[in-house]
Amino acid sequence: MTISMYAASVPVFKRQLGALGKILDKAAAHAAARKIADSVLLQTRLYPDMFPLARQVQIAADFAKSTPARLAGVEFPKYEDNETTLAELKARIDRTLAYVDTFKPAQFEGSEEREITLPIAGNPLTLKGEVFLLHFAMPNFYFHNTTAYGILRLCGVELGKRDFIGL
Amino acid sequence: MTISMYAASVPVFKRQLGALGKILDKAAAHAAARKIADSVLLQTRLYPDMFPLARQVQIAADFAKSTPARLAGVEFPKYEDNETTLAELKARIDRTLAYVDTFKPAQFEGSEEREITLPIAGNPLTLKGEVFLLHFAMPNFYFHNTTAYGILRLCGVELGKRDFIGL
Repeated sequence: MTISMYAASVPVFKRQLGALGKILDKAAAHAAARKIADSVLLQTRLYPDMFPLARQVQIAADFAKSTPARLAGVEFPKYEDNETTLAELKARIDRTLAYVDTFKPAQFEGSEEREITLPIAGNPLTLKGEVFLLHFAMPNFYFHNTTAYGILRLCGVELGKRDFIGL
Repeated sequence: MTISMYAASVPVFKRQLGALGKILDKAAAHAAARKIADSVLLQTRLYPDMFPLARQVQIAADFAKSTPARLAGVEFPKYEDNETTLAELKARIDRTLAYVDTFKPAQFEGSEEREITLPIAGNPLTLKGEVFLLHFAMPNFYFHNTTAYGILRLCGVELGKRDFIGL
């Protein structure tokens, strides 16, 4: 009745980020066909005090990068948040996918019990690996991933839930 | 290095749906203060061919109801989709939470290997329990949950990601 911490993280990030990459390809085709500058899409927000598309994609990708690393207890690379085009955002995803792909199941041994300390709004929060993954990292990852999708729908990009699920 | 199928499903649905219920309370306070009819919020969509708020909440709640049931191999109750107010949507969530709360960890024994057949767009799709949970049910649940949040932000309801995460 159990699943591995690896199975509950790495393949999920790979599938969902891969799907987001294809969504960005559709967004790029949409923008090109209508002569909309990429910067317009990258700066669109659902609401003024929410992050724009570019930041939503960066944060989703960063959760996919940092979560397996924190579970495995290894340092993760820091990527600059300097993308200005959809192609660059897609490249950010591809680079992240290549990194996530380096993790091996054995690195997650005991990670459900590992204490993980995060900086949350300037204060350290310590969670057990299982709680960190299921109740913090995954909700955050899906939040930013889905919000990126929602922004692109608001911009008129033709997408369906199948594009999001990637199954 | 493993977590139970129960831990990866029931407590996640409970926390996230509980958070969505509190979000609906904030939406109700927002609407009441501004004399906005609940029906306006319930019918708001991010884009014309997407579902409105009411349906997003219903679908999120239905994934929380049907997913543990499918994993445990039991029938799940069907709820009518007839909510017309935020309080009724909140009650839908509360009823769903009470149902989800009835599941016991032992019912998920072997569920990661159980073959689960779903009707997808009129065609049956069979997935192993682990794939069903991690790559189908959870992405769908989070998709509708986050989209409900996004619609309420678009309506001006003051929410932060902490409201969504519920941690």
